[in-house]
Amino acid sequence: MDKYEKVTELARRRGFLWPAFELYGGAAGFYDYGPLGSPLKRRIEDAWRKFFVIEEGFAEIECPTIGVEGIFQASGHLTGFSDPLTSCTDCKETYRADHLIKHIIEVPDALSNEEIFAIMKENEIYCPECGGNLSNVYEFNLMFKTMIGPGNKMPGYLRPETAQGMFINFPRLLRYFRDTLPFAAVQIGKSFRNEISPRQGVIRLREFTQAEAEIFIDPRNKVHPKFAEVRDIRMKCYSRTAQEKGEPEEMTFGEAVDRGIIAHQVIAYYIARTYQFLLAVGISQNLVRLRQHKSDEMAHYAADCWDAEVFLDRLGWIEIVGIADRTDYDLKAHMALSKVNLKVFVPFDIPIRRQKLVAKPDMKVLGPRFKSKAKAIADALCALNPNELKNDKIDIQIDGEKVELETTLVSFETIEEEIRGEEIVPHVIEPSFGIDRIIYAVMDHAYYEDNVEDETRAVLRFKPTVAPIEIAVLPLMDREELLSPAKEILEGLREFGFRVDYDTSGSIGRRYRRNDEVGTPYDVTVDYETLEQQTVTIRDRDSMRQVRVKIKELSKCLQALLSGSIQFDDVRIPIDT
Amino acid sequence: MDKYEKVTELARRRGFLWPAFELYGGAAGFYDYGPLGSPLKRRIEDAWRKFFVIEEGFAEIECPTIGVEGIFQASGHLTGFSDPLTSCTDCKETYRADHLIKHIIEVPDALSNEEIFAIMKENEIYCPECGGNLSNVYEFNLMFKTMIGPGNKMPGYLRPETAQGMFINFPRLLRYFRDTLPFAAVQIGKSFRNEISPRQGVIRLREFTQAEAEIFIDPRNKVHPKFAEVRDIRMKCYSRTAQEKGEPEEMTFGEAVDRGIIAHQVIAYYIARTYQFLLAVGISQNLVRLRQHKSDEMAHYAADCWDAEVFLDRLGWIEIVGIADRTDYDLKAHMALSKVNLKVFVPFDIPIRRQKLVAKPDMKVLGPRFKSKAKAIADALCALNPNELKNDKIDIQIDGEKVELETTLVSFETIEEEIRGEEIVPHVIEPSFGIDRIIYAVMDHAYYEDNVEDETRAVLRFKPTVAPIEIAVLPLMDREELLSPAKEILEGLREFGFRVDYDTSGSIGRRYRRNDEVGTPYDVTVDYETLEQQTVTIRDRDSMRQVRVKIKELSKCLQALLSGSIQFDDVRIPIDT
Repeated sequence: MDKYEKVTELARRRGFLWPAFELYGGAAGFYDYGPLGSPLKRRIEDAWRKFFVIEEGFAEIECPTIGVEGIFQASGHLTGFSDPLTSCTDCKETYRADHLIKHIIEVPDALSNEEIFAIMKENEIYCPECGGNLSNVYEFNLMFKTMIGPGNKMPGYLRPETAQGMFINFPRLLRYFRDTLPFAAVQIGKSFRNEISPRQGVIRLREFTQAEAEIFIDPRNKVHPKFAEVRDIRMKCYSRTAQEKGEPEEMTFGEAVDRGIIAHQVIAYYIARTYQFLLAVGISQNLVRLRQHKSDEMAHYAADCWDAEVFLDRLGWIEIVGIADRTDYDLKAHMALSKVNLKVFVPFDIPIRRQKLVAKPDMKVLGPRFKSKAKAIADALCALNPNELKNDKIDIQIDGEKVELETTLVSFETIEEEIRGEEIVPHVIEPSFGIDRIIYAVMDHAYYEDNVEDETRAVLRFKPTVAPIEIAVLPLMDREELLSPAKEILEGLREFGFRVDYDTSGSIGRRYRRNDEVGTPYDVTVDYETLEQQTVTIRDRDSMRQVRVKIKELSKCLQALLSGSIQFDDVRIPIDT
Repeated sequence: MDKYEKVTELARRRGFLWPAFELYGGAAGFYDYGPLGSPLKRRIEDAWRKFFVIEEGFAEIECPTIGVEGIFQASGHLTGFSDPLTSCTDCKETYRADHLIKHIIEVPDALSNEEIFAIMKENEIYCPECGGNLSNVYEFNLMFKTMIGPGNKMPGYLRPETAQGMFINFPRLLRYFRDTLPFAAVQIGKSFRNEISPRQGVIRLREFTQAEAEIFIDPRNKVHPKFAEVRDIRMKCYSRTAQEKGEPEEMTFGEAVDRGIIAHQVIAYYIARTYQFLLAVGISQNLVRLRQHKSDEMAHYAADCWDAEVFLDRLGWIEIVGIADRTDYDLKAHMALSKVNLKVFVPFDIPIRRQKLVAKPDMKVLGPRFKSKAKAIADALCALNPNELKNDKIDIQIDGEKVELETTLVSFETIEEEIRGEEIVPHVIEPSFGIDRIIYAVMDHAYYEDNVEDETRAVLRFKPTVAPIEIAVLPLMDREELLSPAKEILEGLREFGFRVDYDTSGSIGRRYRRNDEVGTPYDVTVDYETLEQQTVTIRDRDSMRQVRVKIKELSKCLQALLSGSIQFDDVRIPIDT
């Protein structure tokens, strides 16, 4: 068994996660989180919330997972979010056409369906299952489609990303933040992609959880006020040029911005925060790198784009977060389709005063000549901008009719006007986290084996902040005199707010192993000294060492250990295990 | 404006919730939770988790929202989860057929589609929109349908309830709980119902959030070990007999069980916990009642079923939680379709010993007579149960062939066997919470108006445990010398883990009102005494009174106030407002 198999087997057996619908034969791309996986997921989401909602002050919102057609028309998902397919005309099996020619053409992403089909023909590619003929290549949209209400009047789509919820709520969010940039909104929730044939466990799911932030900024200001806080953090920077050499370069975020590798401070700040978050939930520092998208890999509208990649056993380097400068693409697309103004009025620090040439219509001249239209013409003249007044003739439109005025009919005046600010379309910085992939990576990086008493001990070395169980209360033996104080301790710790498990079945050694395997940081053992001296032992998962503490100091001691404010060795004099 | 309008207007304007997809014309039955609604929802969900996951020890799981067909075939949703529709043959508008005859027949739920159509014809009912003819009545399934993967091979349905996830994971859950009853699993997540024409805001949504628990119990034991803890809680009991009288009866849960009104302790315990939860999140005690389903209202398999109903302005009494004894219906249905054994082996406290008649095949007799089949016949004889041995002739089946044996060919023996336990199908108690309805009810019950300085003051009197903002930090004036200490206090409170808002815009009075309106329990004001004496004021939302405390005591004081461990009046001598 390699590590991948060991981790997935442990995940399944101990109640972290497993393929969904087992009772009915399953369906690729769907997973269940079990009694231990669900709290692990919840705690990772809460850690994310702490980083981005509490510490950055972003607003969390929650939108439906079903969306109406307009959203995905504007976002481009309706036409552009698809894979090229081909089907066997005999056995009806369906394939990713680009995958069938992968061994012939290295980057088939740029090819049209016709070109892919031509290559298939040329290379005599037939159905891998039955050898039958393959159909023309056609596009398959990856959004799950459904119908809202009876009949076929209103199609609905399961969102392929949470991001659109923030874009289409831009007017309400702007108002909530009192019309001031920058601001940001986030969503943690389900997204859906109808993959053709998903594999690799939770790495490629049809239903998955995203945590996304859309940070709306003034594009003229790409300085971040808190950049100094992250400037000196070191990371493995896999820039475009580093990728040409095939080796990431170690540097600080400050260096990366100073050297022009990361486009600007704002995106650099959020890449750094992403990096901090990943380390905080337990991703190994030496197994994470920050990879810049190559120019041909990036969406045409993006200004810069980085992935946080982690190294996973068997799977190699896998993207778990993407951080992109999406410019004004999304808001402009929704503005164009919805016809709603999504611009923000940004006041100047000091209003600008400037001279402006304006027309000064004279009704005594216009009246006799244009009769009933004179008033409309006068209004139109006042609305013209200075450039339009500089020609010999002035063209204006009245009710769709063109009227030509000689400049001699109009007098002019130069006035001073005050410009208090301007309307801009905000740019968007988007960190997008794949929560399921992060969960798997946290398990993979936490997995560890050592040898204890000639047996392999499997341990999930979870950080206390994400461990699904924080403390296990274990009576040394299944005897009434120990069970009763153990239960009392259990209740006390639960009231204190800890996630506590209680286990009486099997030898104490076996119970320690069971808890090591699910990543419980500390075991509290109730033994006969408990009865005599009102003490218990605390066992440290990683070192397997134990200390003895007074029951009345237990909660405080565990809280200090779990929060990291003291180290295990500092608790008391360690006792022999 | 009535209260309903006031609450929904406030909810929309201040960022709690609003109809989704406004940019694209909206779609009935979908809502967005905004920057204040989302944390309110999250905190109510977390309160639920505290009650049921932490305090009851239920296992939280998370399953996909898309499900495969088998699940809903077994659950009955595929055939039984539908509404009767009729469409106008002219304008194509669609209607709930049963709603069109509501004024004629009071309870049309029991009628067949043919009967409804007959009543429509008889009463000359035409299209309410255009007066056109209405079509035959047909069933419309309320599940959203989609296709998993390309082609039409695998239909998928958006789950109409979270419950099925717990049922189809029963084998894994049972193993997690070490094969021991009772145990329970819960899910908090999205469910979907493709309502024909949803109205009433978040009361009837097409996409909504449920929190459901499936408690698997041994049906022979309906005593709950913690029932004593809830026995004396008083509630408005709207039992079947009380409903006949039209008036709920006030009693304790103990009384309700003792008088046989609630079926047994287990369901009573969870009704009581539901009631405690609702009060804990801010439902008014005098606006909630527990209503028993009438016999004809209850599903045919249910043993007892209760709703927690709240009274809402304009909408009347609305169900927000259902608690049902679903017996073994769900597990039996999945067992029948999936062919997987979902029974639990329950050991007896003391193994039972009993006498048993067994056949004792004599190979010397069977061998010569049956030759090569003799061994198989001997094995079959041993496997027969005592009843089959009592006839004159013994029938056995060997490879589909019937063999008749005279009893004279067989000798018998009475042995003593030990029966260690038996296999049972667990029964299910299911509390099912409609989170969106609870959120709306919490807002409705929290809404309050009083008169301050000749102006109406609108207040959301949220409990501190659910308030989206716990503390607002407000510099008395927007002046640098006050802003800087205010920001320091803000950061300190955030680090402490409080949900803190910061607001400098407008007069202090206006900012107090704004915070009252969104339910912020405490405002902290930074004024000139702060600079001189290192003190701030804490203002109580409900009484509008203020006390002055030292900055260094602020966090502790706020924590004590928010957790309810001290009352506002006990903090210090109140100062004048």
